Amino acid sequence: MIRVTLWNEFAQEIGVLPRELTPELNDEEYAHMEAFTKSRIEKIKEVYPKGLMGTLAEALAADEELEITQTTLFDKDFGLSDELLAKTDVLVWWSHILQNAVPDELAFKIVERVQKGMGFVPLHSAHKSKPFLYLLGTSGCLKWREDEFCRVWTVDPSHPIAKGIPEFFELENEEMYGEPFDIPKPDDNIFISWYRGGELFRSGCTWTRGYGRIFYFQPGHETSPNLHNPYVQQIIRQGIHWTAPRTWREKLDCPNILTPPEAKYLS
Amino acid sequence: MIRVTLWNEFAQEIGVLPRELTPELNDEEYAHMEAFTKSRIEKIKEVYPKGLMGTLAEALAADEELEITQTTLFDKDFGLSDELLAKTDVLVWWSHILQNAVPDELAFKIVERVQKGMGFVPLHSAHKSKPFLYLLGTSGCLKWREDEFCRVWTVDPSHPIAKGIPEFFELENEEMYGEPFDIPKPDDNIFISWYRGGELFRSGCTWTRGYGRIFYFQPGHETSPNLHNPYVQQIIRQGIHWTAPRTWREKLDCPNILTPPEAKYLS
Amino acid sequence: MIRVTLWNEFAQEIGVLPRELTPELNDEEYAHMEAFTKSRIEKIKEVYPKGLMGTLAEALAADEELEITQTTLFDKDFGLSDELLAKTDVLVWWSHILQNAVPDELAFKIVERVQKGMGFVPLHSAHKSKPFLYLLGTSGCLKWREDEFCRVWTVDPSHPIAKGIPEFFELENEEMYGEPFDIPKPDDNIFISWYRGGELFRSGCTWTRGYGRIFYFQPGHETSPNLHNPYVQQIIRQGIHWTAPRTWREKLDCPNILTPPEAKYLS
Amino acid sequence: MIRVTLWNEFAQEIGVLPRELTPELNDEEYAHMEAFTKSRIEKIKEVYPKGLMGTLAEALAADEELEITQTTLFDKDFGLSDELLAKTDVLVWWSHILQNAVPDELAFKIVERVQKGMGFVPLHSAHKSKPFLYLLGTSGCLKWREDEFCRVWTVDPSHPIAKGIPEFFELENEEMYGEPFDIPKPDDNIFISWYRGGELFRSGCTWTRGYGRIFYFQPGHETSPNLHNPYVQQIIRQGIHWTAPRTWREKLDCPNILTPPEAKYLS
Repeated sequence: MIRVTLWNEFAQEIGVLPRELTPELNDEEYAHMEAFTKSRIEKIKEVYPKGLMGTLAEALAADEELEITQTTLFDKDFGLSDELLAKTDVLVWWSHILQNAVPDELAFKIVERVQKGMGFVPLHSAHKSKPFLYLLGTSGCLKWREDEFCRVWTVDPSHPIAKGIPEFFELENEEMYGEPFDIPKPDDNIFISWYRGGELFRSGCTWTRGYGRIFYFQPGHETSPNLHNPYVQQIIRQGIHWTAPRTWREKLDCPNILTPPEAKYLS
Repeated sequence: MIRVTLWNEFAQEIGVLPRELTPELNDEEYAHMEAFTKSRIEKIKEVYPKGLMGTLAEALAADEELEITQTTLFDKDFGLSDELLAKTDVLVWWSHILQNAVPDELAFKIVERVQKGMGFVPLHSAHKSKPFLYLLGTSGCLKWREDEFCRVWTVDPSHPIAKGIPEFFELENEEMYGEPFDIPKPDDNIFISWYRGGELFRSGCTWTRGYGRIFYFQPGHETSPNLHNPYVQQIIRQGIHWTAPRTWREKLDCPNILTPPEAKYLS
Repeated sequence: MIRVTLWNEFAQEIGVLPRELTPELNDEEYAHMEAFTKSRIEKIKEVYPKGLMGTLAEALAADEELEITQTTLFDKDFGLSDELLAKTDVLVWWSHILQNAVPDELAFKIVERVQKGMGFVPLHSAHKSKPFLYLLGTSGCLKWREDEFCRVWTVDPSHPIAKGIPEFFELENEEMYGEPFDIPKPDDNIFISWYRGGELFRSGCTWTRGYGRIFYFQPGHETSPNLHNPYVQQIIRQGIHWTAPRTWREKLDCPNILTPPEAKYLS
Repeated sequence: MIRVTLWNEFAQEIGVLPRELTPELNDEEYAHMEAFTKSRIEKIKEVYPKGLMGTLAEALAADEELEITQTTLFDKDFGLSDELLAKTDVLVWWSHILQNAVPDELAFKIVERVQKGMGFVPLHSAHKSKPFLYLLGTSGCLKWREDEFCRVWTVDPSHPIAKGIPEFFELENEEMYGEPFDIPKPDDNIFISWYRGGELFRSGCTWTRGYGRIFYFQPGHETSPNLHNPYVQQIIRQGIHWTAPRTWREKLDCPNILTPPEAKYLS
């Protein structure tokens, strides 16, 4: 049984942008962002009436090896209490307009749990989430443009995350994310996306940090319906299985080994 | 000309452990650490009368392509003002007992400058420095034991950092750092160290973060004389050249590309 | 069920060095090698009365997911007929003094089957076998010396191949293989070995070629008893599971895609 | 001074397909290929009146650090005598319809020289050349279609090979090469190409084999004019500089180290 926590920012689904969670914005910027947020509630509700992670939760429900918990930024402890984190095997993360609302303290707790073995599956705009940035050490920068036709190519077809996925599949409408994508060299680059407007993007990549595995996957824009897409769902599901912990590390310590391994042979 | 900043913690050379810079220690721990620090002043002065970075600075002085600046944690702005950072091409970093005294704000400024192109050369115990940890995303954990015979093996002999370095060289006395070393997969693993006590360690590794290159090198314990060793000096010098910026990135931004590259072909 | 073929050179177990299989040796070299081979029959029989792969086959027998076939260079078709190869999921390979007796044609068939998905587990002196060299593209060169104490360190402890393996284990007597080891950058470097004589060696490494996975493991010298060691056996067994095919590729072809994927959208 | 050998198949420029160099073709296939070859002489002469490598040689002539030698499959010793190979620092390779005419013996000599330090720059259809395949160990398979609009994206902009290259540049007409491209994980993936027909391709990749570096670059189809393109020329030129040998390895041997490094400390 893999205990999966789906963490969702949820601000756009409910059209709420708390002033106190956006201290980095000045008043004008805040007013702009809030208006932007409110302007799209209907659209997002139409695409994801159950919320982005609600849709994903439904898709994952059929997998009997997964035990799903949903949580959001608006829940207690920013949705991720120490207790919940300690019971999470794989953390799936969606965030966008409130990336900075997640306290550094929480972000570093997530980092530490990944180092101990937890899987981490950041989706789409989580390329700018704190846990992603603190784990990878790069800026996560990229280009973007909404409303593009996207064709996802499988470039590492024997990877377990690509199992059963065709050579390519198409998403009628997705946000374009374009190269250069500022990430460390991936352990595996499984998918690359082609956009009709002329860009491309390494859209499915893995890394290892400590005992933990990370799988980033690009589709999942809030006004595009791609979390309903069966291939997207299958890839995320397989990403969860692939990042599921194999071994846990108890402590992140630097032991002082007073007795060298060779000591017993010297006498 | 490569502008090199040698950043040195310097606490042990002067035997000073400021209480206000060690808030993570309780009083008992602090008393222990302070006594420990004071107990070794003479030893460290004997090994490095000019300080660890002073020794390195002398060794690098003959290289006319390098312009060296020395600075310490005890200098203004923790030794690394915005002005100095903005003029640094390669940052060489030594820290140990005051890792946490470096503010997160400064650590993230260093991370950002690496992402824009600056080279970073953390030495020895800097495996637990904030800039190292925030760039790599792992815990940097390892095993350790003082006073070991060490043989450094060159396992990637055609790497520019290994140029002119023999198959192996020996350090009579170094602190043992032992595997498992919690680091992301290195881009290059150039050196592995053998210790007579029975351990081994990937002691010379590189990574890329954004436009910047990182070279970690293990030798450089404060009570071992290895920064006087010509091979150690040569490796660090070649590490500086290798991590020197090739291209700078101006801004770490995510531009919204309103006009697709294909647009001009559609009319 | 994983169909595992254990391919064994078997020349040393039986003390036979066929003249016609060593055309690269001149008469003097041949006489030397033959005398060397004969001089050690008793020793090898004592250590491996059932042969090297016979010992491994016994150790693997308890794993009900594995279906084991043993074969040797002296069997028909150099031990690997097209039929047997076509039914092999993972090929474990041990060879040494008759590396060149394997025809290029067979070596390339093995390469092709790996590219299609077969796992490949070369052991010990197979670092100079044709399949290993043709898959990796490097020379496989290393240093060596018989009869050394060896301590195998687990440097990637969360890797599936290292599951249950302690931080290190010791082999009283193994052939020393020493760095620099001429291999491409490994996908994973799981084990590094320490030798009392002063050398070290990246002794457990993986690579991917096409759909196939490769796991090289160093222990297994013909006059050292380490294929009887439970950890060595466990690592090889886990290496077999890890390299077992996940997806097969039918054909290694370069299709001419006359109709672009975008064609259906243009009309 | 870097001694660069431009090796060109040259069959299509002169419209010659020697029967004795295509033993793998049956008579019907041969007749087809020969007709195909002859049918395009005019076209290829129009695009490359001086031959593909002649065009490249002109472009490289201005670089005073390069000493260029041109040679073809039709020259003595298949264009690459032992003498010439021994004087080559970087080998640039273009081949297509006569890949199999290069003897295995020559291919393995090239492999060995790369392992000793020579740079290797296979272009375009050399993804199926023997030196490429024997160095990489994969099948080099890909998809293809002639006459496509291609946009080359720089995804590793701080790599020396990408120096001065814009975020993307466009080739009005190139042969489409499409993923999945059967290559080992690249050390660096510098360029990815977007094709208007809907495919994409990792078009600029590096690997290391022994002391030698390899840079594969996709543009260079015989009926497309892209070897005249300044960016393509600049990338190839920078690829030559980047793969130029840093250190040579004299011998590819496995020395028996009878005296352990630790011996001198035991007495």
